[in-house]
Amino acid sequence: MPEIKEQFSLIDDSHLAKPVEIDDLKGRSGETVQMEGAVHKIRDLKNVAFIIIRTVRDKLQIVLEGDSMQLLSSLKEGDFVRFSGVVVDNPQAYKGQEMRATVIDKLSGSKDALDVNLGAKKLPMNLETKLDRRIITLRHLSERAVFKLQEGVGIAFREYLLNQRFTEIHSPKIVAAGAEGGANIFKLDYFGKPAFLAQSPQFYKQFMVPVYGRVFEVGPVFRAEKHATSRHINEYTSLDFEMGFIDSFRDVMSMEVGFLKYLVQVLNERYKHELGLLGIKLPEVNGVPAIKFADAKEQVSKKYSRKYRDPYDLEPEEERLIGDMVKKETGSDFVFLTHYPRAKRPFYIMPSAEDPNYTESFDLLFGGLEITTGGQRIHDYDAQVEAMKAKGLNPDDFMDYLELHKNGTPPHGGCGIGLERLTLKLLGGTNVRETTLFPRDLNRLTP
Amino acid sequence: MPEIKEQFSLIDDSHLAKPVEIDDLKGRSGETVQMEGAVHKIRDLKNVAFIIIRTVRDKLQIVLEGDSMQLLSSLKEGDFVRFSGVVVDNPQAYKGQEMRATVIDKLSGSKDALDVNLGAKKLPMNLETKLDRRIITLRHLSERAVFKLQEGVGIAFREYLLNQRFTEIHSPKIVAAGAEGGANIFKLDYFGKPAFLAQSPQFYKQFMVPVYGRVFEVGPVFRAEKHATSRHINEYTSLDFEMGFIDSFRDVMSMEVGFLKYLVQVLNERYKHELGLLGIKLPEVNGVPAIKFADAKEQVSKKYSRKYRDPYDLEPEEERLIGDMVKKETGSDFVFLTHYPRAKRPFYIMPSAEDPNYTESFDLLFGGLEITTGGQRIHDYDAQVEAMKAKGLNPDDFMDYLELHKNGTPPHGGCGIGLERLTLKLLGGTNVRETTLFPRDLNRLTP
Repeated sequence: MPEIKEQFSLIDDSHLAKPVEIDDLKGRSGETVQMEGAVHKIRDLKNVAFIIIRTVRDKLQIVLEGDSMQLLSSLKEGDFVRFSGVVVDNPQAYKGQEMRATVIDKLSGSKDALDVNLGAKKLPMNLETKLDRRIITLRHLSERAVFKLQEGVGIAFREYLLNQRFTEIHSPKIVAAGAEGGANIFKLDYFGKPAFLAQSPQFYKQFMVPVYGRVFEVGPVFRAEKHATSRHINEYTSLDFEMGFIDSFRDVMSMEVGFLKYLVQVLNERYKHELGLLGIKLPEVNGVPAIKFADAKEQVSKKYSRKYRDPYDLEPEEERLIGDMVKKETGSDFVFLTHYPRAKRPFYIMPSAEDPNYTESFDLLFGGLEITTGGQRIHDYDAQVEAMKAKGLNPDDFMDYLELHKNGTPPHGGCGIGLERLTLKLLGGTNVRETTLFPRDLNRLTP
Repeated sequence: MPEIKEQFSLIDDSHLAKPVEIDDLKGRSGETVQMEGAVHKIRDLKNVAFIIIRTVRDKLQIVLEGDSMQLLSSLKEGDFVRFSGVVVDNPQAYKGQEMRATVIDKLSGSKDALDVNLGAKKLPMNLETKLDRRIITLRHLSERAVFKLQEGVGIAFREYLLNQRFTEIHSPKIVAAGAEGGANIFKLDYFGKPAFLAQSPQFYKQFMVPVYGRVFEVGPVFRAEKHATSRHINEYTSLDFEMGFIDSFRDVMSMEVGFLKYLVQVLNERYKHELGLLGIKLPEVNGVPAIKFADAKEQVSKKYSRKYRDPYDLEPEEERLIGDMVKKETGSDFVFLTHYPRAKRPFYIMPSAEDPNYTESFDLLFGGLEITTGGQRIHDYDAQVEAMKAKGLNPDDFMDYLELHKNGTPPHGGCGIGLERLTLKLLGGTNVRETTLFPRDLNRLTP
């Protein structure tokens, strides 16, 4: 039936081209090149004009002189353009090169003049306004660099774990019961049945340990916490892993150290542009010191003559002071706090062999902020049922979860790393909303 | 303060070892090796015993004879073990090697004997039972191979797009309004305010086009559809991308073709084990034929003497027949259907320049199943406002979204690929639940 065949056109990828960046122009002086981008800044000196183009990742200066000045006439900042011209070496120019444009095609533009000066070195507004105006403010060079770096954190996490023979999984976010317990869980109506948004992929990654031995997931988690602090958001991206056949929860910490080392390497190698733009020097990671929760708490109390209220938990101020202390004592920006009290850890955490009031668990602080919680899990069925009862929980409410233990699972442990908090501390920022693309908090559900 | 320093231990990653697989034993005959895994199958012939160990990704046979027979005494199928012994070449053995074990340490086990025969070539149960028992059935070699392959789909997607200079983003799943419209949206209570679960990252990936030019996201999407079919689940993983500076929606299709080519390459190279185990021969992708929606509909109606009810949409049966027709006519398992009627596409889809009753959009069918919807988006503010009104929508309800157009954005388009459906068709399966790790549907919220 040739009349059908004629109706087909063949879609192929052969004509696809990657966006051209200034780094691609090295050694191409004199060549004519076509590029795309946004008109980031226009400086019109009447006889000569400079246009800074914001490309996909970097920027480029276009110089207009003489006849080519007419290309400026219909352009305004914020326009999106396709342009071509001759590449010129110029030691004064950014990265030593600029373009003498011969064609600038305006593809699209804003409805009115932009009311945010994207060309400014820093956006002159507070965080809340920045977040309100995220759709335009993210176009600022520094703002977008933050989330490009964040991409690198996720890439490093996946590459490192895949290399360690972990398997990537996708677990459901609509669940029948919370993994972390407590009231901090969002409820929804699921076709007339009550359901919840996953507080973590905890149960599901544990389900997968006997299947693949080592698993990880990068995905959203939801916490209905009514905290209005600089550290809390109600939806965040969790970098989770869980590994079987461990000898102790120290293996989990070691794996996280391995990731942090690799992360610093990946960012330094592949995100140099963003690190430079933001003026960031990444910490060196050569192992991470660990100290028991109780010891750290006591040391900080003594050292800073500070009384503490809750013996089972750390206040944010205590975490900050521990971070300071460790930095002074060891030079490390990171510290593992180990052996958290059982009273404050979930029912699935392995009690410590030395003292069952404590657990085989840890937090990782980075610059005094908790970015990870992890530990070894109870793998034995009877032990898990006992631990539930000890917490006042009814094992019958956890029949699905206990299927794991009933069918057997190797000794295992894991952790969850907050992507936004980790990025925040890498950047030296103070509010986790700075490193959350579109934050969700008590008062913010848009944009 | 040396007393503090002494309390620190240093956590390093130097002792970490990757799980050992049978492929690592090549050329190591005679060496003693330590490994871990699950006791998958025991065959006790009294004078000799064979234990099949399920390792993290593959399997290995342990042979016990003479004194080592005693190692069998406390073992049962489903136990998790650490074992060591001498590697022996044996052409009869799986992959030509086996192990004479000298030590088998049982690390953990099931509470009772397993009630599922994991060693069976195929699990003797229907899909619903398999899903009910997912926590144990996923340990079956074929079942776990499915989701290992699915990992490869995600890896190929990310690698391909990063190489094309896309940026990976993480957009919120709790949103103030749906992107896809309609009643198929889950509602939740967000601190006393109404909120919804994102039906797609559509708006957010569009927000990011003027920021990074090209973006992608791998994440969950939620559809409150009351369909109980083999094609629908209520939460799935969407492989989404969006690209700026396109000349037409054909650029989006080309990018998807590039991805499909790369996907086949990645799976053939890195997932040979799973492809072999499942007996899968992947389709060759050398470009993908495209045909207009209306033409395909008419051809199929003629060819199969079939009346159609809805001129604006395709019934599943019509999609299947189109798939068959295209396979016969062109040899391709894939087909792009282009220019869908405007009546059935969302308000943000670019109307076709030739005929505004149609759109610059497409679906991709794979083996007669829709796995992708995509197209060019309206980028002009006035055009978008008009298009909303034409659909009977009030632009005031889309103030956040329209910020994008108000501030300007380049011509752009993108698509969303259903990870589970794509995996399903790669495997030649029939029900999308087969390739969903823990499906959520009208009747299923657990495990």
